[in-house]
Amino acid sequence: MATTVNPDLRKERENASFVPEKITNFLYGGPERVQKKRELASLALNDPDYHHEDLNFMSREQQYETCLKKSLLMTTKIKQLKIDAVDEHFYRSAVTGPSPDPLGLHVGMFLPTLYGQATQEQKEKWLNLAENYVIIGTYAQTEMGHGTFLRGLETTATFDPKTQEFILNTPTLTASKWWPGGLGKTSNYCVLMAQLYIQGKSYGPHPFMVQIRSLQDHKPLPGVTVGDIGPKFGYDVIDNGFLALRNVRIPRENMLMKHSKVAPDGTYVKPPSSKLAYGTMVFVRATIVNDSAMALSIATTIAIRYSCVRRQSEMKPGHPEPQVLDYVTQQYKLFPYLAAAYAFWLTGQTMMSVYMTSSSRISKGDISVLPELHALSAGLKALSSWVANVGMEECRLACGGHGYSHASGLPRLYANLTPGATYEGENTVMMLQTARYLMKSYNQSLQGEKLAGSVAYLSGVQPVPAAGRTRNMLDLGALCDAFRHRAARLVHEAAMQLRNERQAGKDQPDAWNAASVDLVKAAMAHSQYFVVKNFAERLTDSRLDSSISAVLTRLCQLHALHGLVTNSGDFLEDGYLTGSDIRQARRHINALMAKLRPDAVALVDAFDFPDGILNSILGRYDGNVYQHLLEWAKASPLNKNDLAARGSNYEGLMKRHKIHTKNLESVTEALRSHGVEVKVIQKHEYTPEKVNWADVIMSAGGDGTFLMAASHILT
Amino acid sequence: MATTVNPDLRKERENASFVPEKITNFLYGGPERVQKKRELASLALNDPDYHHEDLNFMSREQQYETCLKKSLLMTTKIKQLKIDAVDEHFYRSAVTGPSPDPLGLHVGMFLPTLYGQATQEQKEKWLNLAENYVIIGTYAQTEMGHGTFLRGLETTATFDPKTQEFILNTPTLTASKWWPGGLGKTSNYCVLMAQLYIQGKSYGPHPFMVQIRSLQDHKPLPGVTVGDIGPKFGYDVIDNGFLALRNVRIPRENMLMKHSKVAPDGTYVKPPSSKLAYGTMVFVRATIVNDSAMALSIATTIAIRYSCVRRQSEMKPGHPEPQVLDYVTQQYKLFPYLAAAYAFWLTGQTMMSVYMTSSSRISKGDISVLPELHALSAGLKALSSWVANVGMEECRLACGGHGYSHASGLPRLYANLTPGATYEGENTVMMLQTARYLMKSYNQSLQGEKLAGSVAYLSGVQPVPAAGRTRNMLDLGALCDAFRHRAARLVHEAAMQLRNERQAGKDQPDAWNAASVDLVKAAMAHSQYFVVKNFAERLTDSRLDSSISAVLTRLCQLHALHGLVTNSGDFLEDGYLTGSDIRQARRHINALMAKLRPDAVALVDAFDFPDGILNSILGRYDGNVYQHLLEWAKASPLNKNDLAARGSNYEGLMKRHKIHTKNLESVTEALRSHGVEVKVIQKHEYTPEKVNWADVIMSAGGDGTFLMAASHILT
Repeated sequence: MATTVNPDLRKERENASFVPEKITNFLYGGPERVQKKRELASLALNDPDYHHEDLNFMSREQQYETCLKKSLLMTTKIKQLKIDAVDEHFYRSAVTGPSPDPLGLHVGMFLPTLYGQATQEQKEKWLNLAENYVIIGTYAQTEMGHGTFLRGLETTATFDPKTQEFILNTPTLTASKWWPGGLGKTSNYCVLMAQLYIQGKSYGPHPFMVQIRSLQDHKPLPGVTVGDIGPKFGYDVIDNGFLALRNVRIPRENMLMKHSKVAPDGTYVKPPSSKLAYGTMVFVRATIVNDSAMALSIATTIAIRYSCVRRQSEMKPGHPEPQVLDYVTQQYKLFPYLAAAYAFWLTGQTMMSVYMTSSSRISKGDISVLPELHALSAGLKALSSWVANVGMEECRLACGGHGYSHASGLPRLYANLTPGATYEGENTVMMLQTARYLMKSYNQSLQGEKLAGSVAYLSGVQPVPAAGRTRNMLDLGALCDAFRHRAARLVHEAAMQLRNERQAGKDQPDAWNAASVDLVKAAMAHSQYFVVKNFAERLTDSRLDSSISAVLTRLCQLHALHGLVTNSGDFLEDGYLTGSDIRQARRHINALMAKLRPDAVALVDAFDFPDGILNSILGRYDGNVYQHLLEWAKASPLNKNDLAARGSNYEGLMKRHKIHTKNLESVTEALRSHGVEVKVIQKHEYTPEKVNWADVIMSAGGDGTFLMAASHILT
Repeated sequence: MATTVNPDLRKERENASFVPEKITNFLYGGPERVQKKRELASLALNDPDYHHEDLNFMSREQQYETCLKKSLLMTTKIKQLKIDAVDEHFYRSAVTGPSPDPLGLHVGMFLPTLYGQATQEQKEKWLNLAENYVIIGTYAQTEMGHGTFLRGLETTATFDPKTQEFILNTPTLTASKWWPGGLGKTSNYCVLMAQLYIQGKSYGPHPFMVQIRSLQDHKPLPGVTVGDIGPKFGYDVIDNGFLALRNVRIPRENMLMKHSKVAPDGTYVKPPSSKLAYGTMVFVRATIVNDSAMALSIATTIAIRYSCVRRQSEMKPGHPEPQVLDYVTQQYKLFPYLAAAYAFWLTGQTMMSVYMTSSSRISKGDISVLPELHALSAGLKALSSWVANVGMEECRLACGGHGYSHASGLPRLYANLTPGATYEGENTVMMLQTARYLMKSYNQSLQGEKLAGSVAYLSGVQPVPAAGRTRNMLDLGALCDAFRHRAARLVHEAAMQLRNERQAGKDQPDAWNAASVDLVKAAMAHSQYFVVKNFAERLTDSRLDSSISAVLTRLCQLHALHGLVTNSGDFLEDGYLTGSDIRQARRHINALMAKLRPDAVALVDAFDFPDGILNSILGRYDGNVYQHLLEWAKASPLNKNDLAARGSNYEGLMKRHKIHTKNLESVTEALRSHGVEVKVIQKHEYTPEKVNWADVIMSAGGDGTFLMAASHILT
């Protein structure tokens, strides 16, 4: 096995215009953080207690068992090693890579819900057990028939004042809880979202702490039907589950009562604000933006490194086959997603920091910032996860045939990360939430209110510039202006469309529905503007030295220009840009790609993913792709024996065959010429279709192997 | 289990404006063909000899064995039932569904290669054996390091005049054959593409018939290394393989010599035309266009039926949750792909019929039609498979969470059909081949030559209409004109770009590369124009009755208008269309979708896929989605026991646990309160990090089950 770096990749690294480490420091918030990240990743990846098995060679059941074991071990190690909560994700992501974690819902949803929604007494009762994995829980909200629309949930929790209990029920088939991760096999508890009923009156969905399995033998408790929902596109390692409850009683104290309360006499106490839960949503959506950035950065790392190792076709007669990345069409597939990876990486950071800043205000009761934050996070979650979906697949296809192999790591990456477009709010619904806020703001602005924050620009649509004005399409200010103008115009157009539908006689819901394609388009434009502007703003960071500021500026320009030419109609429609601007933009894209070409490998190296996280033979840091492809293939379970198919299933088929009498002579002769013994036993007529067949015995390998040649089999 | 049809779906069918059967007849070429298709599908789907197992619950090895057995059985049944060659695909597609067939390469490539490239003597020697599955073969062309670029193949076949043999070698790692279906385990023969060498001179790639495994015990022959290349995104049932040859000798007569020949003295005889192989390529690409149509028609059938069963959110306060298909955003996701399914279905038919017409001319030696046919088929293959890729995923995501489950059938459909963008010529390479023909034709036209066929329109770019001219954007003639103008303009622009690059000093290959993004764009526009025009032309079929001609016209309009607004910049850039045209187009799309809404289910019913082919719980004809989701989930192998994890792997872990001494008291107390026996054995210091731990024994179920609560495990 070669241990040196592939010479093509080595050359790429030698020719880069900057030191990747500088960008790595920029991306992770300074050299100390990078150092910490590497230490923890190395601790995880070099720990022999983790076997880091190749999940691609396992059945789903084996994958679940393997990863559950790994996850339990990780939990213990994090405590043992006293890893700080701030650094924990560095360690976790090195252990699991971009794969989900079977205990992910326990850590990421169940515990945080207890922290955020349990009273002090409830925390004392459950937190210690949950933090020590005596209780393992999940968050059971989604039902078979109900997803994004929370109020549609059917599960009921009916208060029984006599016994001071809630009676939990799954009244219909579609009310079955469906999808919660860890519910299928792993959890013994869950936070159940159910419609609260007190004396026949409904109070909407509330969270309840419910034990579903015995702590002694892990069997479902009486009244509980629970199981795995079956295999999915990805998430093989996760036991997403279903749950039906039949008259399951829990004490009144099991409703999580930090916000809403039910008193012993059945009095219901409302939460101080219904918007408080928005904070968590903003946080979760910011993590999805980060996931999207990770998805794209991993995918482009794999595809760009491989495109420098792979050589294909003949660009010039007699010359050697060029590196695939030298094809401009290949650059045009990959570089825009490389730029998008950077753009979303920085977007996610901004969102997290806005969330952190706002959190303290929110915790002090100032929730004025929440609607804007909520609307912005919804749009950015949707935009980034959509782009990541398309981008991961573009990267996979850009790797040609080998991208289709699990050896590339790309199919598994896609299958595991594509749910980001669906969970935590389906993307179209998210965009329409953003649109609702945009319409509200736009109307406020029409009524003379001054807008602030991310929607301030809606106060005035810029005038379309006079014809003949020339524009420098590389200027980031001009590009931000163009995106701002487009967003403002599309918000205006959507509002006009809404008004027209109303004037044509539709009621508000029907008008909203009729205008929804335009509304989504406006929300998308608003979100893209935010991403472009944020990227440009981050480049004004004074800590950036000139070598990396130059290359990052090129990425930002490419990101904006690519968004511009792929949506060129939006900029041309009202004449804001001209055909010649668009042509200029295309030429700039070509020139930028040529400038980025020698830096491409350094730009993905800067993401700093160790091979153990990439899990890709095509994306290996050392570029020794082909040797490892073969090694990997040899380990495929199908290669355990030389035979096409063997075992008891086939034994009965091996001995006796039927051959069409028309071919009998030539087939038996040919078989004999190949050294196969053939003995004709009996010729007979096969009744239904009056075909003449002969029973024949053929020799097979003495060890009961299946002779592939003998395939004219009737049974 | 409900046997009646879901009432929502029933209502949809009652309200349709036409009888689906009429469109079914149109799509399959008349009622007789439909009748035949249904007979054969029913024969396959109701035959108890096929078990029609759910592959989703199997390991890859099980899937391969199951489907290989099924495929062998199918082969026998086709003979038994005397199914006509013309009808065979009806039967095959009912048995395998949209899944690949482990013997697919034998039937689809190995046998046709023998038919087309073997001499009469060679046919006599091998055909009988191959047709009777004594020989099972594959087509081994692609190598680990070489795909679409055929001339880059490294495998060698060196003629040895002394022994009258070819010596076959895999000179490097990257020369290993890689990817051929059926090579990994199933085949005992293959057609090997290898560089022919005679007396040190290379003559390019040629086909050779090579035995790779013993017919007696199926073991690889001496000098042959062969195996499975490992798991992939999809194609689980296929043993795509690798093959390396070391001094393997085959008789001179094993080169397939119908076209090129090597005489006993080593004299090489050239084939009459190097373009002859193009015919097969055209055929194969036409089948990929058909596959793309099938992919989209299956995906839209599933998503549209499910969108009528699924209810979600509250459009109007107090009203019931609407069917998801009533959301205009959902229509905007699905209807354009429904229209594309029809568009490509008709494109594939036209391509096949052009191919058939041309074949007879080609077989008579007239190959003048081949370059155009080749260029057209390359572009249409690429366009249709790209659109199908995006469309299948759009349909999956439109099914929300349940689309992600294998119960939907959509993940498997996507994983099995996405390779269409890569195999038989990588799509970007295909588009550039089309572009090469377009540039050649454009230059001929500049030199005054008259162009014919699909490129005739390049002879003159239409003038941009005067401002102020109003256009009826629903008129199919006007829409075809717009697509023609766009294609002609983009071909012209790409040619200008090429000329500019040349004038700036680049040599031809570099100029081609620099202009390649524009060239792909031009080829795409050309292909889209063909599809739109072909759709419009098919509507002039006099056999169409008015009810179906009305609905098909709406689909055609939607297809064209959607292509227009998603590429609006291309039409706006030179002022051919105006902003107001585009706005008009958007309004028309909304109106068309509203008109298509009541016909949507009938339009997918018309594709006439039985449930056994759809393999989707969401897409069931009877719409009883939720009941069957639960049934299906219960059959998941993870539900075989109630326990999170059990078996010998865990036994060692169950008994003894370590608990952090800090938590010892509260954890043990809590466990006891839950009825778990706990005994503390020993407290001790864990050295590396000085953490204090206690060894604890906990009770587990008496049958050796793993107690999930006991998760603080060290090993």
